[in-house]
Amino acid sequence: MTRDGGVFVTFEGGEGVGKSTQIRRLAEALTRRGHDVMITREPGGSPGAEAVRHVLLSGAAQAGGPRFEAILFAAARSDHVEEVIRPALDAGRVVLCDRFMDSSRVYQGVTGDLDPDFIAALERVAINGLRPDCTIIFDMPAEEGLERARARAGIPAGASGELDRFEREDIELHRKRRDGFLDIAAADPERCHVVDARPAPAAVAAMVLSIVEPRLPDPALKAGRGGA
Amino acid sequence: MTRDGGVFVTFEGGEGVGKSTQIRRLAEALTRRGHDVMITREPGGSPGAEAVRHVLLSGAAQAGGPRFEAILFAAARSDHVEEVIRPALDAGRVVLCDRFMDSSRVYQGVTGDLDPDFIAALERVAINGLRPDCTIIFDMPAEEGLERARARAGIPAGASGELDRFEREDIELHRKRRDGFLDIAAADPERCHVVDARPAPAAVAAMVLSIVEPRLPDPALKAGRGGA
Repeated sequence: MTRDGGVFVTFEGGEGVGKSTQIRRLAEALTRRGHDVMITREPGGSPGAEAVRHVLLSGAAQAGGPRFEAILFAAARSDHVEEVIRPALDAGRVVLCDRFMDSSRVYQGVTGDLDPDFIAALERVAINGLRPDCTIIFDMPAEEGLERARARAGIPAGASGELDRFEREDIELHRKRRDGFLDIAAADPERCHVVDARPAPAAVAAMVLSIVEPRLPDPALKAGRGGA
Repeated sequence: MTRDGGVFVTFEGGEGVGKSTQIRRLAEALTRRGHDVMITREPGGSPGAEAVRHVLLSGAAQAGGPRFEAILFAAARSDHVEEVIRPALDAGRVVLCDRFMDSSRVYQGVTGDLDPDFIAALERVAINGLRPDCTIIFDMPAEEGLERARARAGIPAGASGELDRFEREDIELHRKRRDGFLDIAAADPERCHVVDARPAPAAVAAMVLSIVEPRLPDPALKAGRGGA
């Protein structure tokens, strides 16, 4: 890992890929192995990010259009980074974050109305040099992710098996997002690891643990250092 | 002017230099000459900017530190640009704006804690290509500006003529800001025009009008075009 002290791991992917379940499982496994783990998510739970959340949920952000909204997301991320993530890393913790900069690249840059240069400038502004050490990208075909997200929301699958126009557009959007995440992984293979999210949760969890654990400092060694 | 249609004029300078008075006088003079003038100010009066203002005034922004605050200012500027300034320029109006990007460069970049690259990235994000056509920088020695700002706030000048530590720090800050504005003007002489703010208001107003008016399209011609 590039950082002295904590390790910053982010989790990305479309809807329905099971991110939250896998993050919880990983946190439990790492804690059992003696790591000091913190779970967080975007938009983050820092006071500034909460204040921005209110603006984002109010009508004002929609009136302001996509650029305004994207800058507000960046403000919330900056606060989350400086107030929550960086202090935890400085304290030597393993930080597991549900969605981070790659979600902005995909949701606002690939399938939003905003140009990639604008998204890149905002990303630099928001993360202030704090790039993830490791990013797990959960992947599955768009149709399956959409089906799982719908099942979770209690929306029944169409009886006829035929898709209406709205569903076709939905799948098209999911496909673009999936391609967006896979493009990010291909461009940055040292940081990003694509994990097939289709197998049983226990199998996916084992895969994730096998990627993340070798990248963490030995907790026994660390305890030794801390006591010195 | 570089833009087809409206003309965007911004007004900058330290406290106590008389910006608001001069902007009002200029607007009156230009209106009498047939120009369609709009006055606005930062942080702007758009709905998004107002929502951000609430966050900035709440404790949350202070808790988040200077980067968070600067990104929120950028969000407000973006909303002001897209919702207020750009539509007015597209409608062919002359927009006079009290403070704009140069104030961020000086107040956050020169005398704040933030590095110039961060400020520059935020500026690009916020203005989205909408640079002022003309910027008037009102200038006076730091001591005079400070004295005027204090007189306006009802703070009496020290009877002894001696400065206490707080006043000396205040003057030092005003000097740095003045230098910051003058550096901006020196680096971008085509856009920026330094105006000595010490003469009587009528004299300053004449100077400002002589700089701005030649840069505006002939209102008679424009009326002709509009009727074609």
